Amino acid sequence: LARQKASKSRKVRIALDAMGGDHAPGEIVRGAVAAAERDGVELVLVGQDRVLRDELARYGVNNSNITIAHAEEVVAMDERPVPAIKEKRDSSIMVGIGLLAQGQVESFVSAGNTGAVMAAACLVLGKNRGLARPALGAVFPFPSGPVLCLDLGANPDCKPTSLVQFALMGSIYMQRIFNMESPRVGLLSSGEEDTKGSQLVQKAHKMLRKAKVNFIGNVEGRDIASGRADVIVTDGFTGNVLLKLGEGLGEMLLESLRKAVAANPDLKEAADLLEPTFRSVIGTLDYREYGGALLFGVNNNVIVAHGRSDAEAIKNAIIAAKRTVEQEVVEAITA
Amino acid sequence: LARQKASKSRKVRIALDAMGGDHAPGEIVRGAVAAAERDGVELVLVGQDRVLRDELARYGVNNSNITIAHAEEVVAMDERPVPAIKEKRDSSIMVGIGLLAQGQVESFVSAGNTGAVMAAACLVLGKNRGLARPALGAVFPFPSGPVLCLDLGANPDCKPTSLVQFALMGSIYMQRIFNMESPRVGLLSSGEEDTKGSQLVQKAHKMLRKAKVNFIGNVEGRDIASGRADVIVTDGFTGNVLLKLGEGLGEMLLESLRKAVAANPDLKEAADLLEPTFRSVIGTLDYREYGGALLFGVNNNVIVAHGRSDAEAIKNAIIAAKRTVEQEVVEAITA
Repeated sequence: LARQKASKSRKVRIALDAMGGDHAPGEIVRGAVAAAERDGVELVLVGQDRVLRDELARYGVNNSNITIAHAEEVVAMDERPVPAIKEKRDSSIMVGIGLLAQGQVESFVSAGNTGAVMAAACLVLGKNRGLARPALGAVFPFPSGPVLCLDLGANPDCKPTSLVQFALMGSIYMQRIFNMESPRVGLLSSGEEDTKGSQLVQKAHKMLRKAKVNFIGNVEGRDIASGRADVIVTDGFTGNVLLKLGEGLGEMLLESLRKAVAANPDLKEAADLLEPTFRSVIGTLDYREYGGALLFGVNNNVIVAHGRSDAEAIKNAIIAAKRTVEQEVVEAITA
Repeated sequence: LARQKASKSRKVRIALDAMGGDHAPGEIVRGAVAAAERDGVELVLVGQDRVLRDELARYGVNNSNITIAHAEEVVAMDERPVPAIKEKRDSSIMVGIGLLAQGQVESFVSAGNTGAVMAAACLVLGKNRGLARPALGAVFPFPSGPVLCLDLGANPDCKPTSLVQFALMGSIYMQRIFNMESPRVGLLSSGEEDTKGSQLVQKAHKMLRKAKVNFIGNVEGRDIASGRADVIVTDGFTGNVLLKLGEGLGEMLLESLRKAVAANPDLKEAADLLEPTFRSVIGTLDYREYGGALLFGVNNNVIVAHGRSDAEAIKNAIIAAKRTVEQEVVEAITA
């Protein structure tokens, strides 16, 4: 963060899906109120007008930085994405994406149904050629430094050219957001040697050698958190499995600690003392807790936050959206 | 382990690659000596006769349960597998696999060059049709129970039928070794729904529905350690990446703890108290520390231990090999 470019002075206008997420609209509105207290951001809450007015009234907010755009319908978290966005044209997702398409806002943030947000983004905003769906990319704040991983699940089957696209888009992102001159791009594989990995990876490897990125070659699973690369490129199947393994191992660690304390109560004090450290390690693995994921490959700024987002996570996603707009990441990628 | 079948009374004869591994021959021989003190195992150390005699002399061993089979050559850990086994016919790997092929031993254990062990096993012992290479499978002792994962890296590109083979072989293994009546088989995917995942996984899913295994459907990365399935089936690319991510996250956890203690020395005592718990969680992720991996799909018992194996790991691998022989796992798989 210390290395990011100085913020421009203008305000960034962001639409927020106030009805999307497990804790909507309460936590979403609370997060919006917290974010709107900062300088440089103007929020448009998208959702049912009467509900959102009531929510805002709770905080006694009379903040000209927050307005409401009415959307009557809500896409449920478990609804099938494509039918949902086709049938619910007046949903908070479709209205929010519409505001973005019309240029009334510069970014759209949603903790709602990820598939529906992606489908709406593809349909309304358009996506880059060669991708089945926009890639989901997120920055993990590992102790060794920030690492952008993509795709985290949108494209379960990738062509070699898709992996090269991820590398190019990811490099630009890290240049713009973290001010890295020449981000090191690693291709996730089952061995470091050029000849290791699936057919997909071997083909992508050859293409990446010629691509205009700082390609450092194959990296292995253990390198994800080691700081060897700034951008890690993989297909959406592997990315999704990895992401969820990380979450599962975090839970396993906590469970093991609980069992150890249950077996030996003398350990309780030690476990309590170290709890913030564990939480921070586990939090590192859950990208959506701290700013959400960017949809790479759509022609505008769309940020997906975790379905479980609380107010703090929403605030962070809004801040991340603001930074993405200011650094003109999507413009640079599209160019 | 409590549920394993009663050991048969006969001795199991096992060949051990005494020259393979980062700490060979010292730690390998030390592990052999420890294992030979147990009943029911007879070991053949394969390697340079003069070297192994000297090593055995250190322990003042005069144990009729340990003999030496001379092999003049050694395959280095970083040597290219196929040329190595073709050129070094008198290597400890080739001689050990030869003893197995001739029926002079019932199992071969090596902490040496994994690729060379696999190549030798395919060449000399033969493998099941449909596999590019024998699958590497290992049991992870998660707090929720043992979970067999395969393939962990031998087949980076799989056909749907390979994944079905893994499911069948894995089920038999868990039935025999853990006495499970009907092991639950999960297919690793990027979502629980039948339609989620790559083309490979979607095809395998349909075939597994009809296969003679207790198929519980797709499982996600977070389910690996959750106890939802007893056998987790995946292609060797994804399996390898996962395995190494687990190792990397273990290192990250230790690194974060070190940093936390460095920043706040008051935490040192707590960290020391909980260290055995961390070590055990991290150890859980490193399968080869506790018994090695079985090569699934070759027509004999070959166990691959970690290259970094110390004497304890070697002893565990020998015990695992003995159990695999006694429970006639490979015979059941081949049948």
